[in-house]
Amino acid sequence: MNSPGRHQRGTDEFSRVVNFSDALFAIAMTLLVVGIEVPDLSDSDSVGELADVLNDDLGSFVSFAISFAVIGRYWLAHHGFFGRLAAVDRGLIGLNLIYLMFVAFLPFPSGLLGNYFENPLSIVVYAVAVAAVSGMEVVMFRHAQRGALFEVEVPDEVFRWGVRLSVSPVIFFLLSIPIAFVSTSLAVASWFLGFPYQAVENRRKPEHADDYL
Amino acid sequence: MNSPGRHQRGTDEFSRVVNFSDALFAIAMTLLVVGIEVPDLSDSDSVGELADVLNDDLGSFVSFAISFAVIGRYWLAHHGFFGRLAAVDRGLIGLNLIYLMFVAFLPFPSGLLGNYFENPLSIVVYAVAVAAVSGMEVVMFRHAQRGALFEVEVPDEVFRWGVRLSVSPVIFFLLSIPIAFVSTSLAVASWFLGFPYQAVENRRKPEHADDYL
Amino acid sequence: MNSPGRHQRGTDEFSRVVNFSDALFAIAMTLLVVGIEVPDLSDSDSVGELADVLNDDLGSFVSFAISFAVIGRYWLAHHGFFGRLAAVDRGLIGLNLIYLMFVAFLPFPSGLLGNYFENPLSIVVYAVAVAAVSGMEVVMFRHAQRGALFEVEVPDEVFRWGVRLSVSPVIFFLLSIPIAFVSTSLAVASWFLGFPYQAVENRRKPEHADDYL
Amino acid sequence: MNSPGRHQRGTDEFSRVVNFSDALFAIAMTLLVVGIEVPDLSDSDSVGELADVLNDDLGSFVSFAISFAVIGRYWLAHHGFFGRLAAVDRGLIGLNLIYLMFVAFLPFPSGLLGNYFENPLSIVVYAVAVAAVSGMEVVMFRHAQRGALFEVEVPDEVFRWGVRLSVSPVIFFLLSIPIAFVSTSLAVASWFLGFPYQAVENRRKPEHADDYL
Repeated sequence: MNSPGRHQRGTDEFSRVVNFSDALFAIAMTLLVVGIEVPDLSDSDSVGELADVLNDDLGSFVSFAISFAVIGRYWLAHHGFFGRLAAVDRGLIGLNLIYLMFVAFLPFPSGLLGNYFENPLSIVVYAVAVAAVSGMEVVMFRHAQRGALFEVEVPDEVFRWGVRLSVSPVIFFLLSIPIAFVSTSLAVASWFLGFPYQAVENRRKPEHADDYL
Repeated sequence: MNSPGRHQRGTDEFSRVVNFSDALFAIAMTLLVVGIEVPDLSDSDSVGELADVLNDDLGSFVSFAISFAVIGRYWLAHHGFFGRLAAVDRGLIGLNLIYLMFVAFLPFPSGLLGNYFENPLSIVVYAVAVAAVSGMEVVMFRHAQRGALFEVEVPDEVFRWGVRLSVSPVIFFLLSIPIAFVSTSLAVASWFLGFPYQAVENRRKPEHADDYL
Repeated sequence: MNSPGRHQRGTDEFSRVVNFSDALFAIAMTLLVVGIEVPDLSDSDSVGELADVLNDDLGSFVSFAISFAVIGRYWLAHHGFFGRLAAVDRGLIGLNLIYLMFVAFLPFPSGLLGNYFENPLSIVVYAVAVAAVSGMEVVMFRHAQRGALFEVEVPDEVFRWGVRLSVSPVIFFLLSIPIAFVSTSLAVASWFLGFPYQAVENRRKPEHADDYL
Repeated sequence: MNSPGRHQRGTDEFSRVVNFSDALFAIAMTLLVVGIEVPDLSDSDSVGELADVLNDDLGSFVSFAISFAVIGRYWLAHHGFFGRLAAVDRGLIGLNLIYLMFVAFLPFPSGLLGNYFENPLSIVVYAVAVAAVSGMEVVMFRHAQRGALFEVEVPDEVFRWGVRLSVSPVIFFLLSIPIAFVSTSLAVASWFLGFPYQAVENRRKPEHADDYL
């Protein structure tokens, strides 16, 4: 299968897609810190005033850590996904760009969340942005399966289980939106429900799934 | 042909030109989001106020998406172009730097467009900047053809067709400038006329063009 | 040993971890300069006023140079560490992400230090942030040793000596915290005590340690 | 010669030094555009006002182009220099980091120049910063020659000629400093005297110099 726009693993063109993605991930993750402004102090030597200001910035630090963890997890998934590919085609390169657009956008909702942690709308914007990244992850996974881009063909049962696992963050993030209007802290807490859910799903994992995913 | 300053595909020096370009593309695309400022709210918990402010930022979001798509398309073209090269020479490396200068500049007109979407001059600056990138693309394509840098020599007929295709965005962007003084939305809309034009050109495509481009 | 999530040196997946880390290091180091604002002058042609303003920025320049040197040293250590690895596993990739989170955070304490060099709390924040990076370095070193990820197994004696060397910056940075409340300059000066300490440790170096570290 | 800390071309460690440098160059060049602020307009739809503001920003655009060209030339020289190396050693990696520190600093003097083109002190800061990069280039060149790091040993005559060529920008930039206090435009113009000087030097080029440099 050597259709135009198809690049096998090992070619410069395959590597370029991966390197470009890595650079974009690294920048998005490092830009998160730019959202935390160095405060203006009226008395620059005052420990008390700086302590107060840093305390007010607490939301920004929490938001930095959450966002770094979130984008870091996406990078891990991207690393795992591309590690199983035998080739990329024109469609996957295009989908990867759309996926990266949502990743590159994340510093904005992250800054919003850092400054307005109590504002339900910050949570909504953040949840929608993150759900978009997870959604594109599913689209890329399906494209790779249909275009036979994986090194080892993934059995149907394992594929369906993998899609279920990738779709789950979309659902958890979207479900947090109505919760945000009751309590923003509760909404953020609900994002971590993904972990027990994944533990449950892992017990339903098809045999030999680890050989493919 | 092993003239000084000529680096074959597969050498570290060839890869470096590509990696450097990718890093610059990735940063320019990620910096676009820095142009969208996190708003200052008088009541930080007010959903209504944040909604108003985000609504005012609509131009910035549209500008982010357009600019990401525009730079993304250039990256795709750059990826395709370098994928067909057998070598780079000193001239191409220099031209590539000038090309990247215009790419690195794009976050500025993009920020301008995001803030002053209704201002005809924003459109003019944006269109000129993007036309410059497309123009440099044509210059690099010609240089590679004349310096015999392609892996497979491109037949004249196919080359002329390729140049026509690459020049077309320059023309579409420059033509949008007078339109901007009538209606800025119409000018932005005219940028998308490239798609039907490319569909028409694709029907005039010389036979076997896909083998070369 | 081909457990899932283990990637040997030479695979694309091994390289990706390294390339991603390099991009993040490079960005964090370059972002340091963004913390130095171009001043606003009332008389833009006045040499005297610009000289005054640049003189006020002295703390920022010193902070830029210190932080670049600090992150540069971490990059050198990271370069040396990964150069001795035969493989990475899932655990190390995850620890590397946490390590990089602390690296990506450094431009913030660096900006704080640049603006409030005399404020003891700036020193505290900086020292804690840097100690966290050094701490994660030790954790990664131990993980690699236990998971047999090194190309050449490190003898116990050499390993313990290496850990002692890596832990020392954590201790020096944390010890500078109480000093900062007496004198911030003294606290910053105490960071350089690491150099004579390392000279002393180097004289206690186990034989053949250079073959492993 | 396989001394500790020496990494031959082709190893991951050699590539890492190059990739890290490329990422830092790419970021420094792209950050230049961040120095050009999107203006605040009182009437956001006014072509005249935006034209005035962009006209005031002229210094910033010129400064962006000059700085991109300057850093681009350094990248080209770095690309050429590393292309001739057979190996890097610990010393060269360290010198490269100091060199990159000065490169990473350039967006600051560039922003200064963009905002205060008429201020002699901007020119001084810029000239000193650029001279520092050129100076480090010479230091790295000497280190590589003495450590026998080049693939092909450079004959003494060619080496001395190369040093003279690399030192010349240091001299031209430092000579522009007194000129800046007479006329800033003249000082900037004097930077371009390097081109005719290099033309003269090229006529004195030792035979076969192209085989080594």
